[in-house]
Amino acid sequence: MRAVIYNGSLAFDPRHADPRVADGECLIGVHLTGICATDLHILDGYMNFRGVLGHEMVGTVLTGLSRWKGRRVVVEINCVCRQCDMCHSGLSNHCRKRTVMGISGRDGCFADFVAVPEANLHAVPDALSDEEAVFVEPLAAAYQVVAQCPVDPRMNVTVVGAGRLGNLVAQVLAEKGCKLTVIGRNAAKLLLCEKRGIQTIHVDEVVARADRDLVVDCTGSPGGLELAMRLVRPRGTIVLKSTYAKRAPPNLAPAVVNEVHILGSRCGPFEEAINALARGAVEVRSMISRVFPLEQALAAFDAVRRPETVKVLLRVK
Amino acid sequence: MRAVIYNGSLAFDPRHADPRVADGECLIGVHLTGICATDLHILDGYMNFRGVLGHEMVGTVLTGLSRWKGRRVVVEINCVCRQCDMCHSGLSNHCRKRTVMGISGRDGCFADFVAVPEANLHAVPDALSDEEAVFVEPLAAAYQVVAQCPVDPRMNVTVVGAGRLGNLVAQVLAEKGCKLTVIGRNAAKLLLCEKRGIQTIHVDEVVARADRDLVVDCTGSPGGLELAMRLVRPRGTIVLKSTYAKRAPPNLAPAVVNEVHILGSRCGPFEEAINALARGAVEVRSMISRVFPLEQALAAFDAVRRPETVKVLLRVK
Repeated sequence: MRAVIYNGSLAFDPRHADPRVADGECLIGVHLTGICATDLHILDGYMNFRGVLGHEMVGTVLTGLSRWKGRRVVVEINCVCRQCDMCHSGLSNHCRKRTVMGISGRDGCFADFVAVPEANLHAVPDALSDEEAVFVEPLAAAYQVVAQCPVDPRMNVTVVGAGRLGNLVAQVLAEKGCKLTVIGRNAAKLLLCEKRGIQTIHVDEVVARADRDLVVDCTGSPGGLELAMRLVRPRGTIVLKSTYAKRAPPNLAPAVVNEVHILGSRCGPFEEAINALARGAVEVRSMISRVFPLEQALAAFDAVRRPETVKVLLRVK
Repeated sequence: MRAVIYNGSLAFDPRHADPRVADGECLIGVHLTGICATDLHILDGYMNFRGVLGHEMVGTVLTGLSRWKGRRVVVEINCVCRQCDMCHSGLSNHCRKRTVMGISGRDGCFADFVAVPEANLHAVPDALSDEEAVFVEPLAAAYQVVAQCPVDPRMNVTVVGAGRLGNLVAQVLAEKGCKLTVIGRNAAKLLLCEKRGIQTIHVDEVVARADRDLVVDCTGSPGGLELAMRLVRPRGTIVLKSTYAKRAPPNLAPAVVNEVHILGSRCGPFEEAINALARGAVEVRSMISRVFPLEQALAAFDAVRRPETVKVLLRVK
């Protein structure tokens, strides 16, 4: 099969071995995939991953139980043991023995086929196009913010970063009716938020008054946390969505002095994301900057790095 | 008066100007003071403080309202405006305009006299010696941990750092009946914890299994947070008591991936600390390594830096 692999360098492999399908797994024929900041971080050494890249996808079930065969699906990325203390305590996304599609110990979906546990499948309603469904995984990660930190209309909330994830997190927060601003650098990305009725501020014009109840760092860089610590009020909350391969420089003393809550945040609830897209609460089509065929993955990765790019998709089928 | 000052370098000044006493303040005759890690950090540039050092003290009220005059007191260190948004919302320790005794914008207590707001005074019960009362301020900071993060007996809790603050935090946690371990480097300091019935582990023998519900970083160094991130379970809590002048190196990616709560923690409830000492729930006399007269403050600061030192006191009167 065709596949985009990382083995110390990024490559398109036109004749990669087909996936082996383990017990309890099924084979998915991939339609469309999305490139995420985590994919870029893997190229910088994050998680020491080697293999087929990719974890955002929509596809069709080709083999497996009859109730799934032929259905269009999106796929949770954490593949878990169901036996460790984390799985038993209801935190299976934190399974001690997990593999993570295209991120840790398991091939991803930038390929014609990918093998995944049947337990990870979610059916895609007919109302959703592939171009919408491919956003379910990152939108679920955005919903994780409000799952971890309840948001109400009185709250003064700021999202730092107006890119792919920042836009999705902002749309999720906007639905909660809080006082919301998004801080970003690129005018086109800020405009996308403005078009959804979300107030924006250019990062050069920010006056940090330490008055935000909640700040969500979606920058993907250590500078995001530093700005967040200047924005958040004493005893306020910072949700960290950013991971990066390199060491982070911030001195956390301001967070200690101001008794800030810093919450790490990763994967989220797929069903909420599917429902939000189905009822039109979150709009994603305007975020698609470019769609490349799988063969042009290297050009697609170059495009993702451009500051004006929001979302780049790889079309497989 | 005599005073220990920091003006870019540490000095003992035998003829420092007496404090000016503002409206609502009273003058305290200082008996006994404690040197804290924060005092050392100030010498490294923390908070850019200049003036009389010191914020842990017990003394006698010399001037002020009659109900306080002549009483033995300990003193809250945050001097607040009672008018800003933080004061109005019940978070006056985070007052926007606060000065902090010996730390920020206000002279401290390593001196014969110190002027403080009457609102900051707490009476010391006769049952407490000066040597115990001087621990009220750091013990209150230790109680802040359980004020911010409720602890119950099922919880697996680790304190990183067996020094002054680590010992106090461990004693506060031990009283909650949780499964507690203290990690430290110095054998004598670990023994002090063992004598209170607290299990200890030398830092070289730690096997980090990411299974602690709560980890409290009392190391005063960036390495404490790195170890805490390896000890804490997914979705567990790290309480950060460490501030330092230098930039901190940790990469927070593990805290994002494991969705850890990081809670900054600073000053705490004085009355709980006074009560705990009065009823003997916390023992502090064994922590006193040396007592120096005020004139020998420079030697005292040298003593604090030795690895085997726990608490160093400065006797003023």
